[in-house]
Amino acid sequence: MRILVCNDDGIAARGLRALVEVAQEFGEVSVVAPDRPQSGMGHAISIGVPLRLYPSSIFGADVPAWACSGTPADCVKLATGVLKIRPDLLLSGINHGANFSISVFYSGTLSAAIEGAFEGIPSIGFSLLDYSMEADFGAAQAIVREVILLYLADPFPSDVPLNVNIPNLPLSEIKGLRLTRQARGRFVEQFEQRIDPYGQSYYWMVGRFESQDPDSDTDLWALERGYVSICPLLTDLTNHPYLHHWKVIHR
Amino acid sequence: MRILVCNDDGIAARGLRALVEVAQEFGEVSVVAPDRPQSGMGHAISIGVPLRLYPSSIFGADVPAWACSGTPADCVKLATGVLKIRPDLLLSGINHGANFSISVFYSGTLSAAIEGAFEGIPSIGFSLLDYSMEADFGAAQAIVREVILLYLADPFPSDVPLNVNIPNLPLSEIKGLRLTRQARGRFVEQFEQRIDPYGQSYYWMVGRFESQDPDSDTDLWALERGYVSICPLLTDLTNHPYLHHWKVIHR
Repeated sequence: MRILVCNDDGIAARGLRALVEVAQEFGEVSVVAPDRPQSGMGHAISIGVPLRLYPSSIFGADVPAWACSGTPADCVKLATGVLKIRPDLLLSGINHGANFSISVFYSGTLSAAIEGAFEGIPSIGFSLLDYSMEADFGAAQAIVREVILLYLADPFPSDVPLNVNIPNLPLSEIKGLRLTRQARGRFVEQFEQRIDPYGQSYYWMVGRFESQDPDSDTDLWALERGYVSICPLLTDLTNHPYLHHWKVIHR
Repeated sequence: MRILVCNDDGIAARGLRALVEVAQEFGEVSVVAPDRPQSGMGHAISIGVPLRLYPSSIFGADVPAWACSGTPADCVKLATGVLKIRPDLLLSGINHGANFSISVFYSGTLSAAIEGAFEGIPSIGFSLLDYSMEADFGAAQAIVREVILLYLADPFPSDVPLNVNIPNLPLSEIKGLRLTRQARGRFVEQFEQRIDPYGQSYYWMVGRFESQDPDSDTDLWALERGYVSICPLLTDLTNHPYLHHWKVIHR
C-alpha cells in the first residue's frame, strides 16, 4: 500500500514524524508537507504564486519526503500533480491541537484530507488535543494504528474523509472510539489591542470556543469524556433542505 | 438596516465598490476588506500573527471603511470583535471570478459569508464569472439588488449562507435565478515547471475544472445556460449518513 502523509504544522513537526512512524507499518510512505507551520490556513491554495518543492532526507532513505512552499492543500496537489504520487491512503497530521466543531473549516490538517478526497484518495486527518510543539504522541500513535486497522477492514468511500481527534490522555485512560457529528458552537472572539513602538494599534485574536450543543453524539462530548472522536466529513457544502426555499424562483 | 460588506479581492477592487453601491440602497453600510488581494485563501485565519485595521475614506464620508491586514475570515472577526459592528446583513464580493462546485472550499469570498453565518449574521456571497480586475459589474449590480430584495422578503436562516454566482452576460441575456446544488467535479491540476535564474525549479499551478455531474439542478448547469446560481450552504461538515458506518465502535 502506498501512503501519502501531509500535515499543516510543517515538515519538522513532531506530530508528522509520529504519523510517519505508524504509516510505515502499513506500507510505502511518502511525505509532502509545508516548509513552515501553516495552522489555521483552512482550505487556502496559492493562486498567482509559484510553488516550490524541496527534497528532504528528514525521515531517512526509506521515506521520500518533500518540503513545499505552499499550503496543506497545495501539498496534496503537488504530490499528485508534480511528484505523481498515487496513494492508496492519505494521512494528515498528527495535528498539534484540536480540530473539533467548526474548527474543521479553519484547519489546514483537514484541508489536506478534504483535498485528498477531492482527488478520490481515501483520507484521514488526525489531531491530538495538545497544542504544544513538544507534545507526547505515544498514545496518539496507538490510536492512529487502531483507526487505520479499522479503516482498512471497513473503508469509508473515498469522498468521505475522516476527522479524528484524540484526547490528550495516557492510552489507559482513553475510553474508546466514537463516530461523532460536529458540535454546534462558535468562537467568541476577544481581541487584545496593543500599541506598537510607532504608536499604531495592532490586535491579537484570542478566541474562546463556546459550545451551543449539549447532545451526547458530538465530537466535543466524546472528547470531553475521554473518547476518540471520529467525524466523517462532507465534500459538498450544499444545504439540501433549503433548495426549495424560494418557491418564486424555482422552476 | 446595518450592512457589513467584505470581499477577498481587497479594498480597492471594483467588485467591492459595485457591491457597496447596491448595499447603500438598503441601509447603513460599513466595509472591512483585506488590504490586498486574498483570492483562494479559503477559510484561513491568522494564528500567531497580530492583525491591523487601517481606516479608509475610499468610499466617502457616508461609508466607514477599514482595510485589514488579515484574511477575509479575519475581516469578519475584526468587524464584530474590534469595531463592534453588529450587522443585520453581511454581503461579500462581488468576487472577480466564479465560485461554483468545490471552489466554495477555496473561496475567500465565501469564507467571509460562512464566518458571518458562524456569528449568526444572515450572509450572502456574490461572484461574477469574470476574472478580470476591470470586469463590468453593471448587470451584476442589478442581480445583487434582485437577490437582496428576495432575501429581505423571505430570508434564509442565519446559519444558511448563500453562494450567488452571476454569469458574465448583459442583463438582457440573463435568463433568471435558480436555487442550485454544488456540482460534483474536480480540478485537474496541471503544473507548469520553470527554472529560476539560479537553476532551481518552481511550479505554476494551472488547474482546469472538470465536471463529473451532468444533472440539471447544479450551479454549473445553471451558469452554463445563463442563469444566476444561488446555492444555500452548510456550516456543518458532518457527513450524517456515515455516522453508523463502523458498527463495531458505535455504542
